[in-house]
Amino acid sequence: MRDLDIMYMKEALKEAKKAMLIDEVPIGCVIVKDGEIIGRGHNTVEKDKHAFAHAEINAIREASEHVDGWRLDGCSIYITLEPCAMCAGAIVRSRIDRLVIGLRDPKRGCAGSVYNLVNEERFNHRLEVTYDVLEDESRDLLQEFFREKRKAVG
Amino acid sequence: MRDLDIMYMKEALKEAKKAMLIDEVPIGCVIVKDGEIIGRGHNTVEKDKHAFAHAEINAIREASEHVDGWRLDGCSIYITLEPCAMCAGAIVRSRIDRLVIGLRDPKRGCAGSVYNLVNEERFNHRLEVTYDVLEDESRDLLQEFFREKRKAVG
Repeated sequence: MRDLDIMYMKEALKEAKKAMLIDEVPIGCVIVKDGEIIGRGHNTVEKDKHAFAHAEINAIREASEHVDGWRLDGCSIYITLEPCAMCAGAIVRSRIDRLVIGLRDPKRGCAGSVYNLVNEERFNHRLEVTYDVLEDESRDLLQEFFREKRKAVG
Repeated sequence: MRDLDIMYMKEALKEAKKAMLIDEVPIGCVIVKDGEIIGRGHNTVEKDKHAFAHAEINAIREASEHVDGWRLDGCSIYITLEPCAMCAGAIVRSRIDRLVIGLRDPKRGCAGSVYNLVNEERFNHRLEVTYDVLEDESRDLLQEFFREKRKAVG
């Protein structure tokens, strides 16, 4: 499991790098079903001008198109950063089975940090969650992005 | 304020009825800026086959296109049903100022019922919230929808 998780998280990191290249906060995501990546996404909030153009939402859109329906049962989602409330909610609503997280987000993360929306007894779906998969690689990317941003401003 | 809230909630209810006509759960939404409706949306989850095709997300998309950016400062959002975690998160991320709710949702509502994601001190944006505007009309629509669904099954 651990080797596979690392392999798919590397794919999510590739997506994060795509975001970095277009000057978006480098966060990436892949969705896997039966060993196949059926959805990929990176953050495109500035490019798409929608607050919900997060990596996860973009990947869920692609995966939903792949399965031709909104239910993503049997899928795992790999994200380089712990999801925000919006994305955690979208993941629960999509009925994804498993969530694998790179870096935890103590400020906005809603898969255990600020809230735990993916394991809430009162909701009608809960996920298995794995944390800290290639978290250093994810942190390095984010730090590099914000360091460059500060340089540009200063 | 109350008269205006009722006027805009009636527009959100018109959207909910559009959802009902295409056999989607009847929930509707409008987004208002400077007295003008700049985004309208109704639930299209089954039609669009995406778990995030909720009324609020559809309305945020339209409003973001209208202002040509993801920041919806100065906007009020009217929803016939209390938003779920995903939509509450999207509303916070869009920086909408004010949220007006028709019916509260004790099972999934995240603007005070299960959680309160729209007034969370740890997040970087909080909204003013008004509850119970034309809640009976919203409840009637939802009850009618699920009554017809049960009939169809039974």
